[in-house]
Amino acid sequence: MKISELSRQTGVPVASIKYFLRQGLLPAGRATAATLAEYGEEHAQRLRLIKALTTLGGLSIAATRDVLGAVDQAHGVEGALGAVSYALPVPGTAQPVESPGEVAEGGEGAEVAELLAALEWQVPGTSPHVKGLTAALKELRRLDAQYAPGELAAYARLAESVARLDLERAVGIDDPVSLAERAVVVLAVCAPVFELLRRLAQEDQVRRRVAGGDGA
Amino acid sequence: MKISELSRQTGVPVASIKYFLRQGLLPAGRATAATLAEYGEEHAQRLRLIKALTTLGGLSIAATRDVLGAVDQAHGVEGALGAVSYALPVPGTAQPVESPGEVAEGGEGAEVAELLAALEWQVPGTSPHVKGLTAALKELRRLDAQYAPGELAAYARLAESVARLDLERAVGIDDPVSLAERAVVVLAVCAPVFELLRRLAQEDQVRRRVAGGDGA
Repeated sequence: MKISELSRQTGVPVASIKYFLRQGLLPAGRATAATLAEYGEEHAQRLRLIKALTTLGGLSIAATRDVLGAVDQAHGVEGALGAVSYALPVPGTAQPVESPGEVAEGGEGAEVAELLAALEWQVPGTSPHVKGLTAALKELRRLDAQYAPGELAAYARLAESVARLDLERAVGIDDPVSLAERAVVVLAVCAPVFELLRRLAQEDQVRRRVAGGDGA
Repeated sequence: MKISELSRQTGVPVASIKYFLRQGLLPAGRATAATLAEYGEEHAQRLRLIKALTTLGGLSIAATRDVLGAVDQAHGVEGALGAVSYALPVPGTAQPVESPGEVAEGGEGAEVAELLAALEWQVPGTSPHVKGLTAALKELRRLDAQYAPGELAAYARLAESVARLDLERAVGIDDPVSLAERAVVVLAVCAPVFELLRRLAQEDQVRRRVAGGDGA
């Protein structure tokens, strides 16, 4: 198909498609003339993914390039999820949270290690998510809003159930590219969906408390 | 205390404190001389909150101002949670997802309404989170990555349990300002913590699948 048809099919403006081509996010089409190229279904699929990552996922062009690189190199559902998981921005660390030299000081690193051990989660200490959680807990302590003992473990048990649903959404897909793309969707695009459900549930529970008369 | 001491106590550079004062995020100190002002514990508390919102929460200065405005006007745990919840950016909509005129077309609005009815959640259709969820589901359908029947409800049930933990973290605080600030922390700052726990749980489960030999 021509670039105009690719634009119509995906809802991405032609100017944006050309930008993604220049940035190397989208592979070039098959040249049919000096200024014309032919695009296929794989371009449409990739374009929908780029759009999802940059809008719903909120990723920068540079981050999108990293994720697509991980997608292209990944094998199998574990490879895809693993590679994509490490390529995506770590939640809560859009801006550096720590001043240099502060990380090693606090007890939060040990707290995270103990939590993982208690949960029997097999995660290497080098995981960016271990570092992210350590930084987040440190920031919460500064705000005097630490989790009470056991509270973090209660959240973690629910996170475990959510992750189980996440993985179920990724199995049963055989084509490696589709599989890797599904990993991106599950990790980057579906995270806001759960956060929205959580906000809605909070709204409901606040309303019930008010109706129950035990509120302020 | 002087501004230099305020900076030391909160870890926020003096230049940033002056910027927050100019932007009206932080109330002015008590003037003690032409170029000197005295700051109190309430300034330190507010400053820690601004820092948390702009770093861990990832909020812009404008969004931070909106949230602080909601904090200052809120009453009680329900008022605080409600006001802050609506003032915060809606997850997944950092950039506009919908083209104009598209929202009313799809069946996602009805899907969200049916979901809320099935869950018996009391949430008005005007909630920004209803609109956000509708837009997210539409985007997932474009990516051919819809939730299977019942899958979204399974996520919603877990979100309900998470919201229950969230509300428990906000009760038992009497001072209205502390209460509103806790609402901000729970809603804006703790969201990444759950997302990090989810990523860690995913890492663990991927590892177990590989070890179990049922992976690629």
